[in-house]
Amino acid sequence: MKQQEPTAILLMHCPDQPGLITKMTDFIHVNGGNIIYLDQHVDRVQNVFFMRVEWELKNFVIPTDKIEEYFTTLYAVKYQIYFRLYLNDYKPRMAIFVSKMSHCLYDLLARYTAGEWNVEIPVIISNHPDLQQVAERFDIEYHYFPINKENKAAQEAAELALLKEKKVDFIVLARYMQIISEQFIAEYPNKIINIHHSFLPAFVGAKPYHAAFERGVKLIGATSHYVTSDLDAGPIIEQDITRISHKDTVEMLVYKGQDLEKIVLSRAVEKHIQRKVLTYKNKTVIFS
Amino acid sequence: MKQQEPTAILLMHCPDQPGLITKMTDFIHVNGGNIIYLDQHVDRVQNVFFMRVEWELKNFVIPTDKIEEYFTTLYAVKYQIYFRLYLNDYKPRMAIFVSKMSHCLYDLLARYTAGEWNVEIPVIISNHPDLQQVAERFDIEYHYFPINKENKAAQEAAELALLKEKKVDFIVLARYMQIISEQFIAEYPNKIINIHHSFLPAFVGAKPYHAAFERGVKLIGATSHYVTSDLDAGPIIEQDITRISHKDTVEMLVYKGQDLEKIVLSRAVEKHIQRKVLTYKNKTVIFS
Amino acid sequence: MKQQEPTAILLMHCPDQPGLITKMTDFIHVNGGNIIYLDQHVDRVQNVFFMRVEWELKNFVIPTDKIEEYFTTLYAVKYQIYFRLYLNDYKPRMAIFVSKMSHCLYDLLARYTAGEWNVEIPVIISNHPDLQQVAERFDIEYHYFPINKENKAAQEAAELALLKEKKVDFIVLARYMQIISEQFIAEYPNKIINIHHSFLPAFVGAKPYHAAFERGVKLIGATSHYVTSDLDAGPIIEQDITRISHKDTVEMLVYKGQDLEKIVLSRAVEKHIQRKVLTYKNKTVIFS
Amino acid sequence: MKQQEPTAILLMHCPDQPGLITKMTDFIHVNGGNIIYLDQHVDRVQNVFFMRVEWELKNFVIPTDKIEEYFTTLYAVKYQIYFRLYLNDYKPRMAIFVSKMSHCLYDLLARYTAGEWNVEIPVIISNHPDLQQVAERFDIEYHYFPINKENKAAQEAAELALLKEKKVDFIVLARYMQIISEQFIAEYPNKIINIHHSFLPAFVGAKPYHAAFERGVKLIGATSHYVTSDLDAGPIIEQDITRISHKDTVEMLVYKGQDLEKIVLSRAVEKHIQRKVLTYKNKTVIFS
Repeated sequence: MKQQEPTAILLMHCPDQPGLITKMTDFIHVNGGNIIYLDQHVDRVQNVFFMRVEWELKNFVIPTDKIEEYFTTLYAVKYQIYFRLYLNDYKPRMAIFVSKMSHCLYDLLARYTAGEWNVEIPVIISNHPDLQQVAERFDIEYHYFPINKENKAAQEAAELALLKEKKVDFIVLARYMQIISEQFIAEYPNKIINIHHSFLPAFVGAKPYHAAFERGVKLIGATSHYVTSDLDAGPIIEQDITRISHKDTVEMLVYKGQDLEKIVLSRAVEKHIQRKVLTYKNKTVIFS
Repeated sequence: MKQQEPTAILLMHCPDQPGLITKMTDFIHVNGGNIIYLDQHVDRVQNVFFMRVEWELKNFVIPTDKIEEYFTTLYAVKYQIYFRLYLNDYKPRMAIFVSKMSHCLYDLLARYTAGEWNVEIPVIISNHPDLQQVAERFDIEYHYFPINKENKAAQEAAELALLKEKKVDFIVLARYMQIISEQFIAEYPNKIINIHHSFLPAFVGAKPYHAAFERGVKLIGATSHYVTSDLDAGPIIEQDITRISHKDTVEMLVYKGQDLEKIVLSRAVEKHIQRKVLTYKNKTVIFS
Repeated sequence: MKQQEPTAILLMHCPDQPGLITKMTDFIHVNGGNIIYLDQHVDRVQNVFFMRVEWELKNFVIPTDKIEEYFTTLYAVKYQIYFRLYLNDYKPRMAIFVSKMSHCLYDLLARYTAGEWNVEIPVIISNHPDLQQVAERFDIEYHYFPINKENKAAQEAAELALLKEKKVDFIVLARYMQIISEQFIAEYPNKIINIHHSFLPAFVGAKPYHAAFERGVKLIGATSHYVTSDLDAGPIIEQDITRISHKDTVEMLVYKGQDLEKIVLSRAVEKHIQRKVLTYKNKTVIFS
Repeated sequence: MKQQEPTAILLMHCPDQPGLITKMTDFIHVNGGNIIYLDQHVDRVQNVFFMRVEWELKNFVIPTDKIEEYFTTLYAVKYQIYFRLYLNDYKPRMAIFVSKMSHCLYDLLARYTAGEWNVEIPVIISNHPDLQQVAERFDIEYHYFPINKENKAAQEAAELALLKEKKVDFIVLARYMQIISEQFIAEYPNKIINIHHSFLPAFVGAKPYHAAFERGVKLIGATSHYVTSDLDAGPIIEQDITRISHKDTVEMLVYKGQDLEKIVLSRAVEKHIQRKVLTYKNKTVIFS
């Protein structure tokens, strides 16, 4: 899914008012940009306008490094627009955090290695040594940070230093079974993607498959969301479910859930990499 | 799906031990019964054996009205078997409770009228007069019992008297928006089927679509379960989900949920009518 | 899902070129219309631009009955735009064709009676008398046109006369098991919606469930499409599937398929009523 | 999903007659075997009885290497039973055939490496050199057999020799884009599992995603089946679908289909490894 031509992607939201689409597209059109993607959404409860627009930069008259400044001056201030601008020639840098289970990690690395995503993965971080070998198979650095109550603050500081050194833009928790501190999360707001092995908000917290088994549900789910300081309560990016029956033991749920987890997580990561996720008040807008 | 030949259906569970299938099928086989269905399940955590077996009665040597007695004497006492015996020539009698929304009611009545189910529906009961006209379209008695705090006990007593008079075997709450008292439930244990408009255990209680919207989930669900004294916490019979997006307002969720609710409820009612549901410790075994 | 304020809906497609969104929205915006919905799509293979836009007419300066003329003069000619304009205060008129099976008919009528759709159903037409009673339950005219090789042309002419008399805008074939002639179809191009009981293009033609059973598929499907002169080959509006197993007989497939058929057909009809379907070269664009 | 205790698995089918379950379970029970799994099915059209039964061998009085002989003598001849006996302490040996796409291969190898399946993978065979590196990552032998019209017979003979040398029990075609000859298939009847990238029987043959795009379907599918001499027409093991829209280009279909293909193939391979698939007249019985 590689894009060849240089493009700019604008993600934005602002208070709704008539004529916004015309004004926004006009900015691109009159300055020589060719729009190749546009999706918008109006939240009529909150009265907020959301848009994702992508255009080719080839004949765009505003210099690439000035687009942010021009858009801010001409539009953002006037219409109270919150926006982010991305260039498709930049490969975002992603760190993966794992513990002991390999299924999500393999799925991410298989896609990465096959060149499916516009992303770099400079580092894998773990609180266990178990998956070092997987990292080696794919020639990616693996850093082991054992964590306990006493060393948690120090280890997280070391992790953050490593992430900074590796210029990491966002983090994927690929079944990382360790709660991340509020301070750590604050360094990557809406930039840490987790996979929780339940259909949230059902079965928050530890051992959701055991809880699902106890309750006797007929479907199990998985939820990928941005991590916030509220456990398993951040903005949901993607969810899916699979059917189970009374024949399934807890072990079967854990096993069946793995396919769900890896696909749901990868879909969420892909949307993030493609700049198709916009968060607003603990919810996400997922552009088409 | 009508069955022609007279058959008996045995639903049972007991502590597991080797040889149970042989013994149970032997009871039918040596007495001239032809088994046309068998499904069993062993819960290895609880160590319980579950079975549903159906056989043709044509050449069965034990008189139909003696099967229960013989099975009790020869097997049930010895192996601590809990069982129920059903004959396929009896049409179970089902009451429907509704409030104001018609979608589940129409779906149930369309199936009933088309002769899809081996069931009689002698009465529809409601706490609102709104759906009287629907009942009339299908020539089914409609009884209106307005309920408030003061009259609840009396009205429920009147409802129970009516259900007794109509010889009702089980009750379907087709979006009946009124909590049923513990005393009422005790009269129909595991015989009241509800449809809750969420993927339980997420969003228990009132206004689940509003709660789903607030949380920003990407799927909404519906759950059909037997009613127990714990609100929305009884044994789950069937669940399903449908995909939603940030574009869906609460009203859209309510609307999209209706198809889900009616299909999930009807599937659960069908399983119940077909004697394919066995409850055990707040969970269900759903035979194939 | 009723809309209160008068709005206009424009469905259009034309050869793609830069700036179309700006121009189209400008037409509405500068003339005082408030856009409440916009979805567009560019087919980069065919190089065609598709758009659906809806706006409030309250302050729109072009008189409602002149919008088509103005849009044609100012835009359609210039940009080779094919378009349709709809006003939300007009209730489209829908005829239902049935044969002997009632499940789709009940589902359509339940929604209609509950007021879910902005539609009128003045007439039900059938080649069998069987479902007359269903029509009566809902107080809708039922016309019985028995059809055989000899009388087909005459009967279809009579049907067309009736449809004209009832001012029918579009037709829904709710499991109507009679092939419609090319001449008849030509009177309602892309205005006859059929439900085929398979996952097209698999199992075209008669007895698809038998064919599915023979092939041993693990999923069965249903497909709603516009009727063209090629049997089961018209533009697909909606499809869905359900899981089956080796345990399912042909009769079970027929039965399980019914829920699928009615939901898929109703979803397609709803999209059509909401003016969210645009056909182009035997395919559909389904707006969000 | 490892099993610890030694067990035997019997897969069988025979003409149906009363009392078969009793007789079959009796064979195990009276000889000291403890049944831990039983699933049966009666095809009432063909009048065939199917069963899968698994029992613990610990106290089974018939020596393991004599079970086949005893069962043949005592039952199989008498009841015309076709059966296969498997012991859970044998790891079946699986070869993977690939061409250029890696997604299915990675999914299989990730599961294998994580120890999810009771299987050995001694060799990967390809008609292209592209995926050699993937094999190396997982330390599995990779053999490259370039194939053209002239050398096809010779290369297939060489492949068969290699498979024999590696004692391969069954083959998985993980997006292997080369038609296998009838002679080759005859060596592995119902032992070659393919993944076809469509919802069969729709879009048989080459380029199914292109065909799906052309037809304008709203769902794409994947089908895993045993390979027979009829192209894409062998017994279906597993199928699934995913939703697409008019926005999806052919490239998007190819990409979205990859997740489907790998999950569907892995589910089919898993069922095969677990000895849960029985083929009969070009269809499969998939035990629970």
